[in-house]
Amino acid sequence: MTRSFDDNNATPKTRRQFLQQLGGIGGTTAVYQAMVSMGLLVPGDSQAATNKERWLARSAQFMEGPKPSVAVLGAGISGLCVAYELKKAGFPVTVIEPRDRPGGRSHTIRAGSVIDETDSQQVCAFDSGDELYFNAGPARISQHHSNVLSYCRELGVPLQAFVNDNRGAFIHSASAFGGQPVRAREVVTAMRGNIAELLAKAINAGALDDEISFGERASVLEVLRDFGALDAFFQFTGSTRGGLAADSGGLTPEVAAAALDRDDVLLDPNIPFVPSFVEAYNQAATMMQPVGGMDRIAYAFADQLQDEIFYGAEVTGIFRSGERVRIEGRTATESGALETDYAIVTIPPSVLRNIPNDFSSGIQSAINLTQYANPTKIAFQSPRFWEQEDQIYGGISWTDPDILQIWYPSGGFGEEQGVIVGSYLFGGSNATNFSNLSPAARIELALAAGEEVHPQYRANLNRGISIAWSKVPFTLGGWAVSNPSTLLQAPDGPFLFAGDHLTYLRGWQEGAIISALNALANLTDLIDTA
Amino acid sequence: MTRSFDDNNATPKTRRQFLQQLGGIGGTTAVYQAMVSMGLLVPGDSQAATNKERWLARSAQFMEGPKPSVAVLGAGISGLCVAYELKKAGFPVTVIEPRDRPGGRSHTIRAGSVIDETDSQQVCAFDSGDELYFNAGPARISQHHSNVLSYCRELGVPLQAFVNDNRGAFIHSASAFGGQPVRAREVVTAMRGNIAELLAKAINAGALDDEISFGERASVLEVLRDFGALDAFFQFTGSTRGGLAADSGGLTPEVAAAALDRDDVLLDPNIPFVPSFVEAYNQAATMMQPVGGMDRIAYAFADQLQDEIFYGAEVTGIFRSGERVRIEGRTATESGALETDYAIVTIPPSVLRNIPNDFSSGIQSAINLTQYANPTKIAFQSPRFWEQEDQIYGGISWTDPDILQIWYPSGGFGEEQGVIVGSYLFGGSNATNFSNLSPAARIELALAAGEEVHPQYRANLNRGISIAWSKVPFTLGGWAVSNPSTLLQAPDGPFLFAGDHLTYLRGWQEGAIISALNALANLTDLIDTA
Repeated sequence: MTRSFDDNNATPKTRRQFLQQLGGIGGTTAVYQAMVSMGLLVPGDSQAATNKERWLARSAQFMEGPKPSVAVLGAGISGLCVAYELKKAGFPVTVIEPRDRPGGRSHTIRAGSVIDETDSQQVCAFDSGDELYFNAGPARISQHHSNVLSYCRELGVPLQAFVNDNRGAFIHSASAFGGQPVRAREVVTAMRGNIAELLAKAINAGALDDEISFGERASVLEVLRDFGALDAFFQFTGSTRGGLAADSGGLTPEVAAAALDRDDVLLDPNIPFVPSFVEAYNQAATMMQPVGGMDRIAYAFADQLQDEIFYGAEVTGIFRSGERVRIEGRTATESGALETDYAIVTIPPSVLRNIPNDFSSGIQSAINLTQYANPTKIAFQSPRFWEQEDQIYGGISWTDPDILQIWYPSGGFGEEQGVIVGSYLFGGSNATNFSNLSPAARIELALAAGEEVHPQYRANLNRGISIAWSKVPFTLGGWAVSNPSTLLQAPDGPFLFAGDHLTYLRGWQEGAIISALNALANLTDLIDTA
Repeated sequence: MTRSFDDNNATPKTRRQFLQQLGGIGGTTAVYQAMVSMGLLVPGDSQAATNKERWLARSAQFMEGPKPSVAVLGAGISGLCVAYELKKAGFPVTVIEPRDRPGGRSHTIRAGSVIDETDSQQVCAFDSGDELYFNAGPARISQHHSNVLSYCRELGVPLQAFVNDNRGAFIHSASAFGGQPVRAREVVTAMRGNIAELLAKAINAGALDDEISFGERASVLEVLRDFGALDAFFQFTGSTRGGLAADSGGLTPEVAAAALDRDDVLLDPNIPFVPSFVEAYNQAATMMQPVGGMDRIAYAFADQLQDEIFYGAEVTGIFRSGERVRIEGRTATESGALETDYAIVTIPPSVLRNIPNDFSSGIQSAINLTQYANPTKIAFQSPRFWEQEDQIYGGISWTDPDILQIWYPSGGFGEEQGVIVGSYLFGGSNATNFSNLSPAARIELALAAGEEVHPQYRANLNRGISIAWSKVPFTLGGWAVSNPSTLLQAPDGPFLFAGDHLTYLRGWQEGAIISALNALANLTDLIDTA
C-alpha cells in the first residue's frame, strides 16, 4: 500500500514521527518550516512578534496624516520602548518620569550613584571603572528573549555572556556537607552519579522490566554510564567531573577527587533546587548582559528620546478629559497638567494604586490586587580574590537563606578590582528582614554570612551598597507575584497599560517589552475605531 | 567521654566528617586551610605552583652573577613562557621559531592570515573586524587553568566568557529524533526527567529498599522531583525546562513543549555523550577565551621578547658540544649554528623525530613513540542568522560525525557578521577523511552536512577556510594521544623539554605552561649542579 500524508494509517503519533514523515515528503525546508510553526526552532514569544508586526504595519499606514498625541507615564523599559516606537512612527509623545534617569528598576549602580529608600539614602563609593558596577535590578537576559535582544541590536548595545551556571562556584548550607562549602561540580557529579547508579541497580535487578525490556537494558545502561560517569560495573565511584585529587593532574595522571557522600546529595531536598535552577527555561545558558551595565539598554532608548522624556516629574493624577486624557503632575518646583489623546501607563501597580485616577473599576481592582515581591540585593567592591584564590570566574555561589546567593562578575575577568553581589534574595521573610535593616546592618549581615563561604571576605570587601526594592520610591517592589490581569492587557478608554506585570515574564525586561508591543498594537486598534 | 581530635573513636570516616569536626575545633580558618591542602578549594596544579615557586626563588638567587645562556626551540606557548621567565630573570635567551609569528598551534585566523598545509595554501578572506576571527588551534580556557590565567593577568590579556554549553544549541543525529535537530534543552530535560521518573518508580516499588530505607524514601523522591522536573505523581510529563509550546508564554501562561520520547533519549548510547561533554572537568563552566582571539596570549608574551625571538629560522640539528649545546638551523637565505649552555626543546615530537639530534636513546625512543591526534576545523564568515533566526548565542551544536560540531561565536553578540566554526573533529577516521580533501571539497562537505542542522547555511556561509593539523608544517598533528613520557619531563644533559605533550593536559595551553614551569625548575637544578 502506498502511504500518503493523508493516509490514516500513516498518521504520525509523535512529534518525532511527524517530522520524520515530513522530511521524507518535503525535504529539509518543509521540516524547518514545520518546526518553526511548532515553536521548536523559534521558541520566542510569537504573540509579541505578531504585535510588533501589527504595530509596524499599521503605524506605517497612519504615517501620512496627523497623529494623536500620547503621554507615556514612566521611563522604565516598557515606557521607553513604547515611546521609542511612537516617536519613530511620528507620533507626538511625552514621557513623564519622576526620577532623574531612565530605566526604572533597570538601575545600574556605579561611583556616585544614589540609592534612595523611604528611610535612607546611600551614595555609591565604588571607584570609577568600566567593570565596577552593580546591576541593582535586572541583571541577565536569556538568549530567547528575542524582543530585548532585537532592540539591543537596533540600538547598538554590546552584549556579553553572563555566567549563570559555574561548576566551580560553591554550594554551602549549614545543614549539608558538614556545613562546609563544596564546589557545584562536586554536587552535580555526585547527584548524577548516584541517581544513575541506583537506576542501573534497579534495572539489573529486573525491577523495571515493565518499562525497559531485557533487550533494551544494555542500551539504557550505557546511557546511564555516560550520564553518571559510572564505572565498568555501573557503580559511581567518583569522577574527575567532580574535580581532581590534590597533587594529581598536570605532569602526573589525573585522579578523581573523593566524591561527596550519597546521603549528602540525595537526602536533602533543599540541595537539588540549586543545581536545577540553571535548568530553567529562562535561566539556562546562554544568558547575557550588556557590557558595562544593564542600564545601557535604558540609556540607549533614552538617547533617542532626549526631547520627549521629562525627568523629575511625578504623576499625581490620571483622568479622562472627554475622550482624551488629563495627566496631572508636579516637579520639585511646580505642578501642572498635560492633555493628550492617549496615555500609556507603565507605573507599577504598587505605586499606581496610590495615584488618583478614574480608570474603570475593573482596572482599579486589578491594580489593587497585584501582589509584589520584595527582593533585595547588596554589592561590594573588592579585589578579585574569588578569581585568583578560588578560581571562580563569574557565576553564583549558593548559601543559607539569610543571604542565599553570592554573584561574581561575568565581565572584567583578570582585573584587579571587581564588584561582588553579596546577597540576592528574591523575596519572602529573609528579604523582609534584610529590608528592615539599616544599610550598615545589611553590610554586617552580608559579611557575617558570606565569610562562611569565603574566609577572605572581611579582609577584602568594602564600600557595600544595598537595595530593598519594596522601599524604593516610585517602584515599591520588585515584580508582581500574582498572575497578570487580562484586563490590564486591554485598553481602558484612552488608557493603555504596559509593564512586565502584564506578562508571565514578571521581573524580566523581556516581559516589559512584550507588554509595550501589546500596548502599541492595541493603540492602533483604538485609533482605527476613533 | 570527652572527644578530642586525637580520639580514635572520633576518627572521621569521610571528608565531610573530617571537615565538620575541624570546624568545631579550629573554626572557619582551620577548615579553609584544610580544604586548600586537601585540594578542595584550589584544584589547580599544585606541582606547577611548586615549580614556579622553585623557579622564582632560585632564579632570584642566581640574579647576582652571570647567567648561562639558553636556546629555546619553538615560540609556541611553552617556549614563549620559558623565554619570558628566563628574560625576566636576566638570562641570555634566544628563541628560534620557523614561522613568522609566535603561538605555534595557538593560531588565530583573520583577514589575510595564511594556513599552510603540506599540499595547499589558503589565505583567509574574512572581512576585517575585531570579532571576525577563527581560533584554528586552542579555543577555550578553563577557570582552573590557573597558570595560563595568571599569565593573562600579568600580561594584561583581556578575557571573556566562552560559551561551551548552550541549551539552545542543536543536537542532531541522522539516527535519532527522527533525524531532525532538537534543542539541547529538550534532550537534557527529557534525559533527566525520564531517569528520575524511572528511579522514582523503582523506589516506590520497593526495589531499592536495600539502598534507600523506607524512612528515606520521601526525601529522595523530593530530590528526584527537583532533579527531573517530575509532577506530583513523580512522573515526567514534560517541563518548561525543555522549552515552551508555541503561542504560550509572554502575555499568556507558559505551557511546556511536548517532551521528546523516552526512547529517543534513553536507548541511543551516542546521545548522552553530547550533554555529558560539558560535565568534564576541563569543559564545564566557566570557560573563557581572550577577547579578540586566542593568539592574544602568544602575542602578549612575544611583545616582551622582541629582541629574543628569531622568526623564520628552522632548526635542522640539535647536538651536544662538550657540556653545551649546538643548534643548527637555516633561514630562507642562509644556514648556521648557535651554541648555548642549555637548550629547551619545545618542538612537538611529531616534528622533532625528524630533526637530527644526539639526545640519549631513551629520549629519542620517547619522542618516536609519541602518537598524535589529527584534528581538523573549518570556519566561515556569515551573517549571524543563528542569533537572529535561531536564538543561539555561542555554544556548540552537535551533529553527525562527518562534521561533529558547529561552534557559534561567544563574542560580538548582536553584530551583523560573525565567524561560525563549521566543523571540529578531534581526530580519527572522519578527521582523516576531512584532511585528505582539498580546501574546496572540505567547504562543500561542511555545507552539505551543516545544512541538515541549519537550512540557512548555503545562503549565508562564505569564505570558508580550513585546517588539518596533521598536514601543517612545523606541527604535523594536533596533540599527543599517548601518555606523556616521564623521561621527557627530566633533563637530558644540557637539553630540557617542554610542551603540552609532557603533561596530561595534552592539547591545552595550560599543559604547555605547566611543562614550561617544570623545565625552568629543572634548569635551576642543572645550574646548581653545574
